[in-house]
Amino acid sequence: VADPKKISDSTVRRLSHYLRLLSAVQAEGVATVSSEELARWGGTTAAQVRKDLSVFGSFGKRGMGYDVVQLAGELRGILGLDREWGVALIGAGRLGLALLSYPSFRERGFHIRAVFDTDPAKIDSVREGVRVRRLDDLERVIAAGGIDIAVLAVPAAEAQAILQRLAGAGVRAVLNFAPVTLEPPPGVQVRHVDMALELEGLSFSLVQGRLGGDDSRPVSSAR
Amino acid sequence: VADPKKISDSTVRRLSHYLRLLSAVQAEGVATVSSEELARWGGTTAAQVRKDLSVFGSFGKRGMGYDVVQLAGELRGILGLDREWGVALIGAGRLGLALLSYPSFRERGFHIRAVFDTDPAKIDSVREGVRVRRLDDLERVIAAGGIDIAVLAVPAAEAQAILQRLAGAGVRAVLNFAPVTLEPPPGVQVRHVDMALELEGLSFSLVQGRLGGDDSRPVSSAR
Repeated sequence: VADPKKISDSTVRRLSHYLRLLSAVQAEGVATVSSEELARWGGTTAAQVRKDLSVFGSFGKRGMGYDVVQLAGELRGILGLDREWGVALIGAGRLGLALLSYPSFRERGFHIRAVFDTDPAKIDSVREGVRVRRLDDLERVIAAGGIDIAVLAVPAAEAQAILQRLAGAGVRAVLNFAPVTLEPPPGVQVRHVDMALELEGLSFSLVQGRLGGDDSRPVSSAR
Repeated sequence: VADPKKISDSTVRRLSHYLRLLSAVQAEGVATVSSEELARWGGTTAAQVRKDLSVFGSFGKRGMGYDVVQLAGELRGILGLDREWGVALIGAGRLGLALLSYPSFRERGFHIRAVFDTDPAKIDSVREGVRVRRLDDLERVIAAGGIDIAVLAVPAAEAQAILQRLAGAGVRAVLNFAPVTLEPPPGVQVRHVDMALELEGLSFSLVQGRLGGDDSRPVSSAR
């Protein structure tokens, strides 16, 4: 079993995709899946699936596929989805409020426990059951505990300064929605959700002729 | 030069990441970058960078790195970012309106030319310079031309039916923000932006100890 510190981001992403498929087929009562089925979902090959899973010591039986319930459980453990995570949302604008009501966060164990904004009209209002706090209180709220991850949904110009404050307050994992590239402070992982990136995948397919015409195929995509 | 139809989604994603770095360093007046620098941004290895770029016939000079302006231009062409794309946004809720004001779409050539909703209070209002139309008009507006890509920001329960209508109207590329897995109609590529997926990458890092402690390192992440 390899050192998990060496696992690439793309591998982690594929593990999440595999777990999506496993959860979906488990709900339909399916008992086993093949590496080919997992590959289709992960946007990869069966050989890559076997390699990805072998890193964590999970092996399907040749010709039998993977046990859905068992593998889903293992992946949840590997991805840290067998527990609850406390999330602080910074920014209660359109995007922030959309994220606050996004059902998949809570379903996967990510609980938004604090929301921060600088707009006096929003401070102390309650959105989706969470009170909006003033950004000035950021350090105090985080020091009180229960926050593992921060989500940045603030204007580009403010993001880096808030990231520094989060790092100073001890937050080690940040998901950035601000349309700007941030310099991660030491020991802090910053992931950037770049919504234009997925559009670029589509424009690539359109210009490269992967779509339409007689040789077209349904592309199951990066889910 | 390989068949672009065979290029994996992960490769396309990395090409986008490389282009981000190239645009950033170009703005700073940097003339060449190494495959190591590109690798850091793409969350991959220098060998993978060379492999990714060789697929399209782009080779850096050994020891000299890649010419920033030239490679950025090639990547823009490969990714279809050297032209404008017309986008239809379906859903003018919180997320839809956040997407409508997301600056990176337009910067990268994705122009939201039509917005659709079913809420009578929103129909015919103008948001970010675009008039909201009734969803009933979807087929008529698409038939009038100028729409290459659709973005779905609708409730999960409505997404598949709208996808079918888009496919019937001739749209071949769809970006789905609805928190549901869609079945792509033949010849249509559907990409799913799963905002929880990135949080899972962070929880993985937290449980696997990639962060914090003495052996921590800044992780530059999947940008």
